Amino acid sequence: MIKKRITSPHVGEPPEKTWSNCLVVGNQFFISGMTARDGTTVLGGDSMYGQAQAVFTKIRHLIEAAGGKPNDVVKVLIFVTDIKRREEVWKARAELFSGDFPASTLVECSALAAPELLVEVEAVGFFGAGG
Amino acid sequence: MIKKRITSPHVGEPPEKTWSNCLVVGNQFFISGMTARDGTTVLGGDSMYGQAQAVFTKIRHLIEAAGGKPNDVVKVLIFVTDIKRREEVWKARAELFSGDFPASTLVECSALAAPELLVEVEAVGFFGAGG
Amino acid sequence: MIKKRITSPHVGEPPEKTWSNCLVVGNQFFISGMTARDGTTVLGGDSMYGQAQAVFTKIRHLIEAAGGKPNDVVKVLIFVTDIKRREEVWKARAELFSGDFPASTLVECSALAAPELLVEVEAVGFFGAGG
Repeated sequence: MIKKRITSPHVGEPPEKTWSNCLVVGNQFFISGMTARDGTTVLGGDSMYGQAQAVFTKIRHLIEAAGGKPNDVVKVLIFVTDIKRREEVWKARAELFSGDFPASTLVECSALAAPELLVEVEAVGFFGAGG
Repeated sequence: MIKKRITSPHVGEPPEKTWSNCLVVGNQFFISGMTARDGTTVLGGDSMYGQAQAVFTKIRHLIEAAGGKPNDVVKVLIFVTDIKRREEVWKARAELFSGDFPASTLVECSALAAPELLVEVEAVGFFGAGG
Repeated sequence: MIKKRITSPHVGEPPEKTWSNCLVVGNQFFISGMTARDGTTVLGGDSMYGQAQAVFTKIRHLIEAAGGKPNDVVKVLIFVTDIKRREEVWKARAELFSGDFPASTLVECSALAAPELLVEVEAVGFFGAGG
């Protein structure tokens, strides 16, 4: 059961020797903490909702590139830089998932990789879990 | 291997279209970050130990509703708002588990979902892992 | 599929009734958030790179004690106390892994277990995933 790296033409690849955006092992997939960064810009600007949409869209692209569906996700871990704006993340999340939503943890961290980033989301899932 | 949502009469359900407290996939279960919030009150008040007890009790209820046992947990991720009080969380954790404790990560985050919340814990496990 | 606790002579054991550094369940391993703490000292001193090297070395020792290889890791979760120094963590990480790196999330938390600790890393993997 050898891990397999998944890439999507819609999601920028990380620098060499840092991380994989998505790995598949057996029937499971693991998606790195995604942010709204896109090259030198930030998708969604200073909107938590806009950034979260960009993040969940990246996650969708990676899952689809791996051969799965968003509802195959079983767990997400979400970091925001302002907990008071978390419902904007909920709103974007509700555009990606349906039915029984993933298990979820959402906390405020003191900083993400750049000051303009407001939200980071990682995801774990099983192909077929979404039915 | 379709995911199955687990509920417990002892654990309040989240709002619609946000998350599942517990999902089961195959022989694995995934429990969302639980806090001591109970409707409009916080179990355990301003005691880190009391809140942690409430959190671990919720986790126990969800695992039992799923047909497992606390010692089936293999990994917990714990966020506290005051790292200096982490041993109060240890104390509550030691009331839930026995034998070989789960792998664990515990860090201080800058905020949880409400200012009165002191601790959040997510858990992952495998049915039967506890023997 | 009963969980099995793994210890390494090269990695200090936690206090009783707190956590396991490494648990194995089936073909998967789960490694607790490791820091550079070694008894009463901190390996690597006040260097983020030095501490990260110590942390990844502990992770390697635990994986090898479990019968695996570093490249079997599929996901890491990294907390640092100063996000601006994250590339020092990247540098140490690149000394442990090769080929397709693990999925990774790295955020700044407000504090780790002691003020002198700069980085904490947890890891999840599958035996054989690294080929």
